[in-house]
Amino acid sequence: MAASSLSLSHPPTGLSPTTTTRHHTTTQTPPSSFFSPPKPTSTPPSHTLTHRRRLPTAHRRRIISSAAAVETLHNTDTTIVDKSVNTIRFLAIDAVEKANSGHPGLPMGCAPMGHILFDEIMRYNPKNPYWFNRDRFVLSAGHGCMLHYALLHLAGYDSVKDGDLKQFRQWGSKTPGHPENFETPGIEVTTGPLGQGIANAVGLALAEKHLAARFNKPDAEIVDHYTYCIIGDGCQMEGIANEACSLAGHWGLGKLIAFYDDNHISIDGDTEIAFTESVEKRFEALGWHVIWVKNGNTGYDEIRAAIEEAKSVTDRPTLIKVTTTIGFGSPNKANSYSVHGAALGAKEVDATRQNLGWPHEPFHVPEDVKKHWSRHTPEGAALEAEWNAKFAAYEKKYAEDAAELKSIADGVLPAGWEKALPTYTPEIPADATRNLSQACLNALAPVLPGLIGGSADLASSNMTLMKMFGDFQKKTPEERNVRFGVREHGMGAICNGIAHHSPGFIPYCATFFVFTDYMRGAMRISALSEAGVIYVMTHDSIGLGEDGPTHQPIEHLASFRAMPNILMLRPADGNETAGAYKVAVESRKRPSVLALSRQKLPNLPGTSIEGVAKGGYTISDNSTGNNPDVILIGTGSELEIAEKAADELRKDGKTVRVVSFVSWELFDEQSDEYKESVLPANVTARVSIEAGTTFGWEKIVGSKGKAIGIDKFGASAPAGKIYKEYGITKEAVIAAANEVC
Amino acid sequence: MAASSLSLSHPPTGLSPTTTTRHHTTTQTPPSSFFSPPKPTSTPPSHTLTHRRRLPTAHRRRIISSAAAVETLHNTDTTIVDKSVNTIRFLAIDAVEKANSGHPGLPMGCAPMGHILFDEIMRYNPKNPYWFNRDRFVLSAGHGCMLHYALLHLAGYDSVKDGDLKQFRQWGSKTPGHPENFETPGIEVTTGPLGQGIANAVGLALAEKHLAARFNKPDAEIVDHYTYCIIGDGCQMEGIANEACSLAGHWGLGKLIAFYDDNHISIDGDTEIAFTESVEKRFEALGWHVIWVKNGNTGYDEIRAAIEEAKSVTDRPTLIKVTTTIGFGSPNKANSYSVHGAALGAKEVDATRQNLGWPHEPFHVPEDVKKHWSRHTPEGAALEAEWNAKFAAYEKKYAEDAAELKSIADGVLPAGWEKALPTYTPEIPADATRNLSQACLNALAPVLPGLIGGSADLASSNMTLMKMFGDFQKKTPEERNVRFGVREHGMGAICNGIAHHSPGFIPYCATFFVFTDYMRGAMRISALSEAGVIYVMTHDSIGLGEDGPTHQPIEHLASFRAMPNILMLRPADGNETAGAYKVAVESRKRPSVLALSRQKLPNLPGTSIEGVAKGGYTISDNSTGNNPDVILIGTGSELEIAEKAADELRKDGKTVRVVSFVSWELFDEQSDEYKESVLPANVTARVSIEAGTTFGWEKIVGSKGKAIGIDKFGASAPAGKIYKEYGITKEAVIAAANEVC
Repeated sequence: MAASSLSLSHPPTGLSPTTTTRHHTTTQTPPSSFFSPPKPTSTPPSHTLTHRRRLPTAHRRRIISSAAAVETLHNTDTTIVDKSVNTIRFLAIDAVEKANSGHPGLPMGCAPMGHILFDEIMRYNPKNPYWFNRDRFVLSAGHGCMLHYALLHLAGYDSVKDGDLKQFRQWGSKTPGHPENFETPGIEVTTGPLGQGIANAVGLALAEKHLAARFNKPDAEIVDHYTYCIIGDGCQMEGIANEACSLAGHWGLGKLIAFYDDNHISIDGDTEIAFTESVEKRFEALGWHVIWVKNGNTGYDEIRAAIEEAKSVTDRPTLIKVTTTIGFGSPNKANSYSVHGAALGAKEVDATRQNLGWPHEPFHVPEDVKKHWSRHTPEGAALEAEWNAKFAAYEKKYAEDAAELKSIADGVLPAGWEKALPTYTPEIPADATRNLSQACLNALAPVLPGLIGGSADLASSNMTLMKMFGDFQKKTPEERNVRFGVREHGMGAICNGIAHHSPGFIPYCATFFVFTDYMRGAMRISALSEAGVIYVMTHDSIGLGEDGPTHQPIEHLASFRAMPNILMLRPADGNETAGAYKVAVESRKRPSVLALSRQKLPNLPGTSIEGVAKGGYTISDNSTGNNPDVILIGTGSELEIAEKAADELRKDGKTVRVVSFVSWELFDEQSDEYKESVLPANVTARVSIEAGTTFGWEKIVGSKGKAIGIDKFGASAPAGKIYKEYGITKEAVIAAANEVC
Repeated sequence: MAASSLSLSHPPTGLSPTTTTRHHTTTQTPPSSFFSPPKPTSTPPSHTLTHRRRLPTAHRRRIISSAAAVETLHNTDTTIVDKSVNTIRFLAIDAVEKANSGHPGLPMGCAPMGHILFDEIMRYNPKNPYWFNRDRFVLSAGHGCMLHYALLHLAGYDSVKDGDLKQFRQWGSKTPGHPENFETPGIEVTTGPLGQGIANAVGLALAEKHLAARFNKPDAEIVDHYTYCIIGDGCQMEGIANEACSLAGHWGLGKLIAFYDDNHISIDGDTEIAFTESVEKRFEALGWHVIWVKNGNTGYDEIRAAIEEAKSVTDRPTLIKVTTTIGFGSPNKANSYSVHGAALGAKEVDATRQNLGWPHEPFHVPEDVKKHWSRHTPEGAALEAEWNAKFAAYEKKYAEDAAELKSIADGVLPAGWEKALPTYTPEIPADATRNLSQACLNALAPVLPGLIGGSADLASSNMTLMKMFGDFQKKTPEERNVRFGVREHGMGAICNGIAHHSPGFIPYCATFFVFTDYMRGAMRISALSEAGVIYVMTHDSIGLGEDGPTHQPIEHLASFRAMPNILMLRPADGNETAGAYKVAVESRKRPSVLALSRQKLPNLPGTSIEGVAKGGYTISDNSTGNNPDVILIGTGSELEIAEKAADELRKDGKTVRVVSFVSWELFDEQSDEYKESVLPANVTARVSIEAGTTFGWEKIVGSKGKAIGIDKFGASAPAGKIYKEYGITKEAVIAAANEVC
């Protein structure tokens, strides 16, 4: 699969994805200053060496020997590539200058690799940013987003017109301060928080590898694309990046090619002050192929050759360390932190124009550059058309597979899928909702082609294995159980990548609920970027018992209820667990968090799949006229306690309504009429019970009600003992009810 | 400093810390089956080789060649070491069995290294677990805590008596399900959530290196101890561990010695399913010295030699990969995930007793083992006494240094420190609270010897540099500005380690408030383990502007208000920032989160340091009789808006009280009387304004009040524009006030 790149110098005539590029046809030995892996500790594979061929140097270019030196181009023989690269640099400079806010340094340094990727290597259709078989690009160092916007602009994406560039970082623009997939078609994922992007890229590459193994046929390679990513020093320092890259190496994601923008500068200054590890050696340890491009500023051919080499290594992901100068071209600010995150200032912009020989007005794109890039529109259309034809043939021959793939690619859920969900009656023995969750996953797996996921080394505790499938592994990528290892943050971000690969993917991931603390960065990006990931979070309270307070969530329900665009669901039994899955599967643009019990819970009368969809609903009531003496409100494992308390209160002559409050967000979205039918304003005698913080419950129980919960850390002891000692009991509910009514 | 270990076989007679162990006096070449670094890619330092000497083998021991094989000891010639190791194993087995809950696998595999550490290597005083110059031990794989409890028990710690072992994982016991420093003297930090412990250990070792460089004199090495840690496969997979270990390598923490329990098993089975990277190579890349002990099950001398070697490498931390068999000794469950996290079961316990030749009752400690370990009580007392004498001499000669060190060691804040805090009047120009925070840090640094900290590569944005100090670096460890790089999670956990090293340390750390999502795991451990870390969190709302929604906190204030034992402070101006620091510095057992603005805020009349300590207080009021028409409540940057709205409402004839609600937790702790004086129950006309989620505000404004806030994600635009578009304005407050009163 290494021969399918497009080459600028030789645009493929037939647009066949198997067109051989010119790079493959040359045979000379490269000069020694070209890329070379950094002191390899193991012998590189022999194919690596055979691919190191001399690349035609189309025009004179000075190779700089030290990344730290500031170097300028001599423009007397500026070619179209130089011009294009400088166009990218100045679009970034000018946009940041106009906004007086942003990060010019990265785009100035990474323009060469950006140009080569978007103009020579990547296959995409600018007029359909969602074409299924496109190559994906992720700017993990999202603060450098003007690089990406400039490239989308030159490539002909309608989302980034000239006017959009001029609106960089302004209200309502398509060019926000960090890349946001939900704002700007052509942006694949949402980055900015460092390390997320490379983990997303691992998810995108996982998705490709999975789909290719599952759907490609010997006579039809219908899934075949690359994932490219640019990582900065900041991303490299983040633990999430190491987690995700360890998995990428483990899975052998050969079509993941990451560029490490090695510019030695982070916000606080030279990376020497905090980052002196050997990144190359670490990536080799993680099972990656590593290449070093020593001159990322002007060494176009080095970059091209590195990409060729990366493509030739199919059993491992590749890290191309590209040594660049941050703010390249700025005579006084290049190679310093001052160019990282602030506008250059008018004077330095002028000096940079002078230095790089760029006499143009701000935001100017020279006509020849425009013309040069204009071919991507017809070529992209042709690529997509060709693929469509290929898919039509595939569909004829492999109808069933085609339907599954289509469902994943288009995001249309198969009709009637929800009929697979189990339902329960009170006679069915009590079970932990984590087990009931597994029943749902196993019921849904056969009917939802896009369901894929797993746990952070807790599959047997989270109960997340789909029993009819094997493990997604290097040699079995067609399987759908993913083993994430103990890497929660990476897991969440990888699932975001899978979700954004194709709208029909339904990624799920699992750990103990308390460890959402480890992955909250990724979960927030799920919510913000509209990735419908399902978070299967078990051991959801002190009910887990002996593991103690480090493992017992207290504030977590509240902390997700407070987060925008995420559904927090805490089902109480079998029907509610099924209902939670129904909601979660349907919520393709809003992630769901399912809080599930370790301990057994009875199937309660009155619970239902439909009830869950309303967020809050009455499960039992002996009152009339919407006017009970008291309303008892519970969630998850405490709904049973509320129900038992109601039984006793009713025996004492009270009229009692029991409400399951499984999802606050869904209840909030109901009509005022419906809300009044569940929680009538005139009934202020309300008691809630939940084995978590009472924070936020005032909204539901009102100032005259009582919230029973836990506002301190848990304890290590058998679960029943903790419940009793913490007062999460029927008796406490009865006492509170008698107090408020 | 490599010669200061205690050796079992030759207990030092004079107890001098410079006693040479027998290991140093032998000179033979070790047999080749002894430890050997895994294929080193760089030549090991020459001193490494010279320290590889034959260790006397006191008794016959079978060296097993494969870690995967289950091997038994032949008890015909069981020595005291074997016996002690088996005592540890069976205390763990029996405690887990009695609790029917817990993790026997790790203690069974790690008992040999545990025995050697606690019986032969470490310097501690069991009768004073808080002796300042003790060696520290951290069990990062905290689930194996029965190992640590058994060792504390044998060593003579009063916190883990026989009865405590029998109460493992029970209500109120000193032996909870994971190690908790606040429950069990002798436990240094709280672990269980994986990866935290090794990062804590990095913090402990940083603290030692810092204090040693700052206080030791050529004639008085008053600070001199090691930090030991056991890491499991799970810890190794976590990103936080890579972050912290990258820093440990960067800082050259030569007295940090970590044992990697390489047992190839995690909860989901063989580590092959998700963890195939080369850990050794990765640690070499991170700048560590790496040693491999191939036989961790019975290779006592290999373990001893590895520790010797580790101590001889003083410029780098050492990872000793110890290949062990999880559940060693269990004939049917060893080397399988089934022994990881569940009791063996009576039958397998019997079989293990049989297999290891252990005829004793549960919880039995043989008399000779007891006797053998009993010397640690007098020896520990002698070690401490010796150090105390040394310190007394130091104090005489270096009074000033001694006073500083004492303050750090004892946790007594210098008298009058708070007088250094700046105060402000409304005439003083507006400033961002992040800048005001820097003023506080720089005012406090000279008067608080224990203040140490820094930022995750945002020092110039978070404004956290102490200008009178340089950077804590490998060659300048006496300095107090720590450069954490972009490693938020590691940073938080390292600060926990510093805090737990000595009660007078006041570690602070900084990033953008939104990135608390990356470090929440560590922050929760601060709260749970009573580490008074100060979290300096700037860019605390949409007020940061153009960086957009990925960088704008919304739910974060609420998410920390919901967390137990952590102070969430959002100061509004100079006085409140100073007040927040006063509270935070005094809160040595409760971490503080300071949410600070990027944008300038005026110094308001009525704010005060004393007010902050109350959590909520009136800053202006034109009412009488504690009965205003309306109460406006604001925090941080929105307090100004509330005040401006009040001005206009007062002009319209309303009586208006403005309340600063800087810390909900502190307000909650005030008397009912005080609360009534600020928020009288009869005044239900209340309006709150805060540029964050309204979640939770019902508690303060009541069901008749109005909460103005943001319940969706932010946007990328200039800050003023977003405030206006999101309705966080004076006009909105006035409209709401008119609505409610």
